[in-house]
Amino acid sequence: MRRLLSLGIFVCIFMNPVFSQMAEKPLMGFGPDASKSQREREAKFDASLKRENLREWMKRLSARPHHVGSPYDRENAEFMLGLFKSWGFDAQIESFDVLFPTPKTRLLELVAPEKFTARLDEPAVAGDATSGQKDEQLPTYNAFSADGDVTAPLVYVNYGVPRDYEELERRGIDVKGKIVIARYGGSWRGIKPKVAAEHGAVGCLIYSDPRDDGYFQGDVYPKGAYRSENGAQRGSVADMPVFPGDVLTPGIPATKDAKRLDRKDAPTITKIPVMPISYGDALPLLRNLGGPVVPEAWRGALPITYHFGGDDSAKAHFKLEFNWDIKPIYDVLAKMPGAERPDEWIIRGNHHDAWVNGADDPVSGLVALLEEARGLGELAKTGWKPRRTIVYAAWDGEEPGLLGSTEWVELHADELKNKAAVYINTDSNGRGFLGMSGSHTLEKFINEVAKSVPDPQTDLSVWERSRANQLVNGSPTVRAELSGRSDLRIGALGSGSDYTPFLQHLGIASLNLGFGGEDGGGSYHSVYDSFDHFTRFGDTNFDYGIALARVCGHAVMRLADADTLPFEFTNFADTVGGYLNDIIKLTDTMRDDTAAANQLITSGMWQAVQDPKAKLIAPKTQKPVPYLNFTPLQNALARLRESARNYQAATAGKKYAPATERTLDGILMKTERMLTNPNGLPRRDWFKHQIYAPGFYTGYGVKTLPGVREAIEQRDWIEAGRQIAIAAETLENFAAEIDRAAAAAKN
Amino acid sequence: MRRLLSLGIFVCIFMNPVFSQMAEKPLMGFGPDASKSQREREAKFDASLKRENLREWMKRLSARPHHVGSPYDRENAEFMLGLFKSWGFDAQIESFDVLFPTPKTRLLELVAPEKFTARLDEPAVAGDATSGQKDEQLPTYNAFSADGDVTAPLVYVNYGVPRDYEELERRGIDVKGKIVIARYGGSWRGIKPKVAAEHGAVGCLIYSDPRDDGYFQGDVYPKGAYRSENGAQRGSVADMPVFPGDVLTPGIPATKDAKRLDRKDAPTITKIPVMPISYGDALPLLRNLGGPVVPEAWRGALPITYHFGGDDSAKAHFKLEFNWDIKPIYDVLAKMPGAERPDEWIIRGNHHDAWVNGADDPVSGLVALLEEARGLGELAKTGWKPRRTIVYAAWDGEEPGLLGSTEWVELHADELKNKAAVYINTDSNGRGFLGMSGSHTLEKFINEVAKSVPDPQTDLSVWERSRANQLVNGSPTVRAELSGRSDLRIGALGSGSDYTPFLQHLGIASLNLGFGGEDGGGSYHSVYDSFDHFTRFGDTNFDYGIALARVCGHAVMRLADADTLPFEFTNFADTVGGYLNDIIKLTDTMRDDTAAANQLITSGMWQAVQDPKAKLIAPKTQKPVPYLNFTPLQNALARLRESARNYQAATAGKKYAPATERTLDGILMKTERMLTNPNGLPRRDWFKHQIYAPGFYTGYGVKTLPGVREAIEQRDWIEAGRQIAIAAETLENFAAEIDRAAAAAKN
Repeated sequence: MRRLLSLGIFVCIFMNPVFSQMAEKPLMGFGPDASKSQREREAKFDASLKRENLREWMKRLSARPHHVGSPYDRENAEFMLGLFKSWGFDAQIESFDVLFPTPKTRLLELVAPEKFTARLDEPAVAGDATSGQKDEQLPTYNAFSADGDVTAPLVYVNYGVPRDYEELERRGIDVKGKIVIARYGGSWRGIKPKVAAEHGAVGCLIYSDPRDDGYFQGDVYPKGAYRSENGAQRGSVADMPVFPGDVLTPGIPATKDAKRLDRKDAPTITKIPVMPISYGDALPLLRNLGGPVVPEAWRGALPITYHFGGDDSAKAHFKLEFNWDIKPIYDVLAKMPGAERPDEWIIRGNHHDAWVNGADDPVSGLVALLEEARGLGELAKTGWKPRRTIVYAAWDGEEPGLLGSTEWVELHADELKNKAAVYINTDSNGRGFLGMSGSHTLEKFINEVAKSVPDPQTDLSVWERSRANQLVNGSPTVRAELSGRSDLRIGALGSGSDYTPFLQHLGIASLNLGFGGEDGGGSYHSVYDSFDHFTRFGDTNFDYGIALARVCGHAVMRLADADTLPFEFTNFADTVGGYLNDIIKLTDTMRDDTAAANQLITSGMWQAVQDPKAKLIAPKTQKPVPYLNFTPLQNALARLRESARNYQAATAGKKYAPATERTLDGILMKTERMLTNPNGLPRRDWFKHQIYAPGFYTGYGVKTLPGVREAIEQRDWIEAGRQIAIAAETLENFAAEIDRAAAAAKN
Repeated sequence: MRRLLSLGIFVCIFMNPVFSQMAEKPLMGFGPDASKSQREREAKFDASLKRENLREWMKRLSARPHHVGSPYDRENAEFMLGLFKSWGFDAQIESFDVLFPTPKTRLLELVAPEKFTARLDEPAVAGDATSGQKDEQLPTYNAFSADGDVTAPLVYVNYGVPRDYEELERRGIDVKGKIVIARYGGSWRGIKPKVAAEHGAVGCLIYSDPRDDGYFQGDVYPKGAYRSENGAQRGSVADMPVFPGDVLTPGIPATKDAKRLDRKDAPTITKIPVMPISYGDALPLLRNLGGPVVPEAWRGALPITYHFGGDDSAKAHFKLEFNWDIKPIYDVLAKMPGAERPDEWIIRGNHHDAWVNGADDPVSGLVALLEEARGLGELAKTGWKPRRTIVYAAWDGEEPGLLGSTEWVELHADELKNKAAVYINTDSNGRGFLGMSGSHTLEKFINEVAKSVPDPQTDLSVWERSRANQLVNGSPTVRAELSGRSDLRIGALGSGSDYTPFLQHLGIASLNLGFGGEDGGGSYHSVYDSFDHFTRFGDTNFDYGIALARVCGHAVMRLADADTLPFEFTNFADTVGGYLNDIIKLTDTMRDDTAAANQLITSGMWQAVQDPKAKLIAPKTQKPVPYLNFTPLQNALARLRESARNYQAATAGKKYAPATERTLDGILMKTERMLTNPNGLPRRDWFKHQIYAPGFYTGYGVKTLPGVREAIEQRDWIEAGRQIAIAAETLENFAAEIDRAAAAAKN
């Protein structure tokens, strides 16, 4: 009661000015009158949304396992097709044929010093209605692991990222010919077998340590939301930072007759067998490892002393065989044609396939998308027609590797390059704070949208609550910046959901949105990601599902109906300036650190402070870090800033003739395309975007200015120089395009 | 092999200049010729030291439990008395009569939701010859706990420090009428029951979480060195930051006829019963706690989800009764009279009592002290006589509360104020790096001493290896400072060993020395602190025992034989300047943080970002932090810096007449006295030193400029102002004394 009261006071003082100010100020891309009617339409849309629909659809869509190739996957697609049609959309299913391996044999045993056979099974749980659907569940496995049958000593490699192998090197522990056991976390899972194979390992186990999403974090299921001892995390391990989508048809659509790679030549299938296991199955393995004790940062929450292994203390046998079948996937596409500019598309998607029942991942986001589409359908029935075309998509095959979205994008690439203005993605959704990531040309826009949606728990706007969170919990840098900047910074996109082909392959401005932060848990990619789990521990009453439908619905409607597309470039220039500063600082820090480390090694100081009993091997000295010539990027950025300011000045408060609006839109919708380079990134030409990419050695984690940054991180100074030139040219071209837009706006 | 080679090269390049430079430069307090003969004497001393003696004496001294009041405690004292006498010392035992409670009844049960009776016993272990000496072992208990018999709900309070109770307050969890269970660490143990009682708890359990010294850190005993599931940490919980020593005779010696407090009036006995338990005994209690999940920083390494409890989920019954007996303690004092200045004493001590067998604590330090005394005895037999008096001490009753040293200091206070020049303390000793703490007037001196002793493992000096450790592992601040400062900074002394009465009660310049950092373990205050444990996991071949004997032996000999005492004041002034900066910064940070926190609370931002399901209670706003007038301290410090520089200039390279030497010594040996104030610190007048004190709410942890700092930490701005004046006056008086010394040096 007291809490509500103090919040009430707070709302009076702080919120009303925001709302009243917003009511007066025209929306980005709209004139004053159009803004008013847009806001009225949003109010009608909001009023039409019903949380009971979300609950009902989640129950329906997650009632049975619905992974790629399962009967229920197709049933769900057809169910949604029916819904979209009933709401007046021009809907259809587009199908592709993709390689989708499923396990035939899974065996893991500890053969020495004691015998133990891993359970590899997630048992049914009381109070969880779907956890016992054994007949239809995919067992725990990692898709796109190689087949294999190996017996070898075990080595614990922490998260299994490159830095961890440096630590092993200090101890003279070689993983060559051995099976590594890594814990989930610290990188996307597919990085672990990739780096293990690079170091000569013959097999890779990935387990869920209770430190990361088990009892250390909270009570385990079914008492609480966290992963129990038999829970394991399924997931793809294809080398997606090289290319996502069907592993046999890189860059081309996986149609029935597509020219396919031979499976043995498919570069993104792992080189070694890899399997996810529970901590119940990992414990007997880890408990028996010999060798030195691992450093503190490597230790999880199992009640043991963690050792490296790597000697012959513990030996495992591990066998995997897969059915390497081609399976159909079913994307559901639903169009609402634009009345005025039908060839400008606003695309909105969420995947529908799951590893098992997937109530949280992806259904929690999907049902918000459905309700949003229903709301637009309702508006359309009252006579509203969007000026631009709206496309709703429910993607199949996201879990094994963004298959549905990637193949669709590859099939329609030419049309999309011409017509796609913006792609808005969601995936899982939860309770808490709005997370906003994407193209920084849309930063100002999505900030404005977020201000228009109330938070279900506080009576603040979702934007205000996100900002409050940064004020209270942000780093000193974040907090300091908040007072001087009117927009919240949105994140940059790496990978991990269906925006990747749109943004990083084609250069379509994209956003990824979702709520979270207050409903932690450990059901991810397990049989326990169920309706029962979600409605007990997630967004239990679907309040945040509605909030997400509002945020995305407002965004879609504004993008579809604005006089001109609400792109803005000063925030983008500011952001890229930040990335460039980061990279310069990174290089300077590497230079200092390398010099300092070399000095400690050559002077013998490093060696002198090691415990002689630990017999550590000194790191090798590294070549000094040179000074890189960043001026091409600095000059390009200076020009970009100026172009962005000029465009802002040229468009401020301006009302255009219809023809100018069209010309301007035609330029604006393609500006993000200018951030791509047809040659793509080094060693992964599928990734064309020069500002955002998933990290080659982080997986989902983003690398900004990736060509330059990764060359520096890999200490390839020659490539760094080349990439600086490419990135600079990209920014110059982008600035030129903004200049074109500014010139068009002046006509 | 490779490692040795590179170290060899390193030694050629880097070490020789240091050694050769040292061979030329006169020692502090010595002229060139005297330096040479002093160095030769040290070489003779070093050559006489034998590690076999350390091993043999450790085996002898730790062969049976030897706590206060035990037969073997007295036998050890008499054994050492015999040794000292055999080496030519004028030795005697001084005895006091102290209150020493031992357990009569110990019972701990979980009564709900399940029945469990705690084992409260450390079983014998294979391969540990003394762990089964049940008849003589003190059981696991906390000395100076109150008697009690309580049944109440349990609350987990993390480390049980004041900050933890703020976290409980956020959750509306009150410990009033409840039993708290705290984990060891985060403060000295005696703080936990003190703070618990201040908050109304009726009992306090302290357990050893495996995160802190159990399996999380390394393999457990007997496989490894760490604490196993039944190991528990004994220890005193008397409120020693108020006063140490016998709890019934504060400030006066506990002689047979001393006027004693009634036990019920003894202020340092705990207000509530308190008991240490193993994690084996804690697990059933913690596992059954209900209430919310604790924050991440509160979680240990037990395989459970840690909850606060505090509701009626888990209830414990806990009964303690003690024999409140007066027991004799036996200090062994061994004097080697000074030939020239017998009334200037260099005192060197280590305690001899243990909680059980105490091979590490305290015997590892004690045997180094014995060998050192034997070495001096050998020298004396060849005709050497120290110019000043040397006093060796083996203290009894350190474990229950620095009893032996405190009572001896209180008995001889007047004589010591006149005669004591320096006190050098050791306690446990291990393998690794030299730790140096103490009076900063001795910083330069002990740095010089540390350069004269080779490290057993690397061929560097122990000083060089300590410095290398700071270079490699120090914080950026520490590393940056190393290049610009010729001396390693020594630590400030809080409490936890026998230097406290010398330094903080009487103002005798003190040092505390010991090696460590490479022999972690969890035998502390358990039956497993045994000869077998130490010789497997500690300083196994006593190399560092010899190194300690050398460091302390050189220090004692130089202090005893220098022309004038090697005190130096610029390092002290520099250090106090650092403390003052810390305190000013602390106040500024508190001011900013308080304003920022108040703003978040009054604006409702703090409330808005809390998960409403967690039902957190907002913190109360706090009064703004005023600007304090630090100028008296700044001015005093400026004067001190000048006095220190003047003294340095006045004494540089100077040779004095014998009478001047005596005059100068007479002033120098009492300078540290000027850093005391007869009124002591607020609410604890036993602690007289104004620069160093144990923290009122940290226990062993030091508070520098304690009067000022603790007033600020407690937000008592009026007291802070008063304490600034007192500290400033102290520094002015100290500076005046340095001026007197400088004047004497000019005569």
